[in-house]
Amino acid sequence: MPEFLTLLPPDEARALLLSHLTQPMTDSEWIDVPSALGRVLAEDIHAPHPLPDFRRSTVDGYAVRARDTHGASDSLPAYVDLVGEVPMGAAPMFEISAGQCALIYTGGMLPTGADAVVMLEYTQSVQRNEIEILRALADGENVIRVGEDVAQGQIVQARGSLLRPAEIGGLMALGIVKVNVLKKVRAGLISTGDEVIDPGQSPRPGQVRDVNSYTLGALVEKSGGIAKLYGIVSDELEALKDAVARALAECNLVIVTAGSSASTRDRTADVIRWLGQPGVLVHGINTRPGKPTILGVCNGKAVIGLPGNPVSALVNGYLFVVPVIEKLLGVLPRPKPTVLARLTVNLSSQAGREDWWPVRLTTETQRQGDLSHRRFRGSVVEGSAYQAEPIFGKSNLIFTLASADGLLRIPPDATGLGAGEIVEVFLI
Amino acid sequence: MPEFLTLLPPDEARALLLSHLTQPMTDSEWIDVPSALGRVLAEDIHAPHPLPDFRRSTVDGYAVRARDTHGASDSLPAYVDLVGEVPMGAAPMFEISAGQCALIYTGGMLPTGADAVVMLEYTQSVQRNEIEILRALADGENVIRVGEDVAQGQIVQARGSLLRPAEIGGLMALGIVKVNVLKKVRAGLISTGDEVIDPGQSPRPGQVRDVNSYTLGALVEKSGGIAKLYGIVSDELEALKDAVARALAECNLVIVTAGSSASTRDRTADVIRWLGQPGVLVHGINTRPGKPTILGVCNGKAVIGLPGNPVSALVNGYLFVVPVIEKLLGVLPRPKPTVLARLTVNLSSQAGREDWWPVRLTTETQRQGDLSHRRFRGSVVEGSAYQAEPIFGKSNLIFTLASADGLLRIPPDATGLGAGEIVEVFLI
Repeated sequence: MPEFLTLLPPDEARALLLSHLTQPMTDSEWIDVPSALGRVLAEDIHAPHPLPDFRRSTVDGYAVRARDTHGASDSLPAYVDLVGEVPMGAAPMFEISAGQCALIYTGGMLPTGADAVVMLEYTQSVQRNEIEILRALADGENVIRVGEDVAQGQIVQARGSLLRPAEIGGLMALGIVKVNVLKKVRAGLISTGDEVIDPGQSPRPGQVRDVNSYTLGALVEKSGGIAKLYGIVSDELEALKDAVARALAECNLVIVTAGSSASTRDRTADVIRWLGQPGVLVHGINTRPGKPTILGVCNGKAVIGLPGNPVSALVNGYLFVVPVIEKLLGVLPRPKPTVLARLTVNLSSQAGREDWWPVRLTTETQRQGDLSHRRFRGSVVEGSAYQAEPIFGKSNLIFTLASADGLLRIPPDATGLGAGEIVEVFLI
Repeated sequence: MPEFLTLLPPDEARALLLSHLTQPMTDSEWIDVPSALGRVLAEDIHAPHPLPDFRRSTVDGYAVRARDTHGASDSLPAYVDLVGEVPMGAAPMFEISAGQCALIYTGGMLPTGADAVVMLEYTQSVQRNEIEILRALADGENVIRVGEDVAQGQIVQARGSLLRPAEIGGLMALGIVKVNVLKKVRAGLISTGDEVIDPGQSPRPGQVRDVNSYTLGALVEKSGGIAKLYGIVSDELEALKDAVARALAECNLVIVTAGSSASTRDRTADVIRWLGQPGVLVHGINTRPGKPTILGVCNGKAVIGLPGNPVSALVNGYLFVVPVIEKLLGVLPRPKPTVLARLTVNLSSQAGREDWWPVRLTTETQRQGDLSHRRFRGSVVEGSAYQAEPIFGKSNLIFTLASADGLLRIPPDATGLGAGEIVEVFLI
């Protein structure tokens, strides 16, 4: 019996799987904002008040009425009376009337009556309490309006926003110190194979240590999930049924990595069919590595069967597990991190198949901490600071990935890539 | 007194700071590998044994002696006797002699005497215990050699390696379940300014909540550090001296964000000078935002003074704080994540100054979970899936960053960028 009757393109396979996951997770929890880095908002956040909620100066200078500076220049200064100094962190106790000004620092609160701030550089103190202004000001110049950052009631962060340093700062600026975030996605991980043993044990001849529970567990954790390990399950059908059913009951998502023997490879598909509807959606994907990948949904939850060899399992984790976690969290889509690089060798590929190559990125011009060296001319990028050097090795060799900076994709419609071509590398 | 006599280019400023941090941290701790995601190795890891440590088949088929298949083809098959089946997870109890073969599955251990595996597809079972082989095999074909992934004693991961999912898997494959990692960098954070209050409090007119302790704290955490908050220090010199001295004693790195008033802005520099040698290295950087940034080293530890306004503080955190943390950890340099995008508008810039713009990335072709849509022709990239739309706003508006996908750099030698140009955006 052929294992794979039809091979779906990976994009299509992923879209099919995601289309069956119609319910983003709704479980949420309240946590402190300072510890919410990397979490995802469970609800829209509205600004409880405008920000800033008072008019602030953006410069050091004198708060004035703009109309008092009309026509002012180096040769024809305007003269205003200094009536006070704005304290930091408090409302000024005075107002500005026609012909008056007050010393103010960056971030200070504009006195009532003032509507602009002239920078110190454009002023001279001619005599005690009289200031020369050498420039005309527009209404509102060098002033942050009330609500200029956000207006009261405005949605400042939408449900599904990932909380990065800037979002955390925005919430704190509004006095929002606790936030409702989605609970982390619980992913159940099952390794199968009679040859697989716990990494803490010493393998006898013919045995190998479980790698997939840990690579995929780390990937889940990195992507906003919690990995729950169900251990290594023997190649018996009943044992696998029990383990997957238990994981499915306790988790939002189940990942099974296959044993190597032919008889066990299709067992995951059998279990998915037995476990719930609609069952197996995709059995076989036109990609390398990862052809035997199985995508299924049982009663609303994704069950993913990945090949047993470690490189295939992890690469296909990036391709299928991460998008499922993002879909379950309802994360707003963000660009995936990439770099452009010049390919060092020719790579051939089979038309119709998508290939993913582990590559090492090297550069002669790379300097630590320096973010950019490339030049752009017109609308095209010439060259790249990086060279992408494919790491050749059979796909069971986990250290081919451990020494890779990223994955290079050869799209299905290509029959290969040539040395010297500029390629896009997805950082891992 | 002018605040900034000379403005250093940011690359030069950063290089100068890093050159004074000559001692990477040496404090380390032993932790479990499965919880080591994102940590940095404190020592080289040598393979305690080869991987794999037995010869494995990469296919389902028959283990044979390659020489028995010489000259074999569809029209002239070789015939061998089937003497057994290799069990998964155990050494075969038989050997292969001339004219013999054994059934073997992917990952199975090659029997002594066999040196290649013929795929099932190229065989036929002609009669009980006799197999027809329709292809000639090379010695070692479809076999992973002992040590093909890593050789015994080989350095598989170097000191300074960041532990990603693949590294974690590699360690587990070798049975290395505990690992010596560098302790997280402790960064002390101090906010100054009489106008700044704790985010849990309600501001009176003229007061603003502390944002910088939390944005920079999250950035530190994200970059492999632990943020220790020393709170908001008043604009008194003695109070700042006390706080910075205490933070410097307890941390590996100190970050002070400045109060807004002119009198307090240089106070950080005064404290750095007072605190230790060599003191202030850079006072004023030719960048926007971030001109008032101060870089100093006191007795081997970096003390960084950042502007008080939240966008400047965070952007300069990416530019200066993250590289310091990486240097202290001795992290091997890795490419920074970027995407290419087409700029939507003209942006002007002052020659000699480096500008960083928050930008939003949009695309019409973006599909969730789909990693790549761009095409490369020859050695240049034509176009981009993304549009980069600069977010205009004064640099005190934290929500300009909270809505940004990344930062666009205008290099010092440019006087701006044109609408339609392809630009590189650093993801934040």
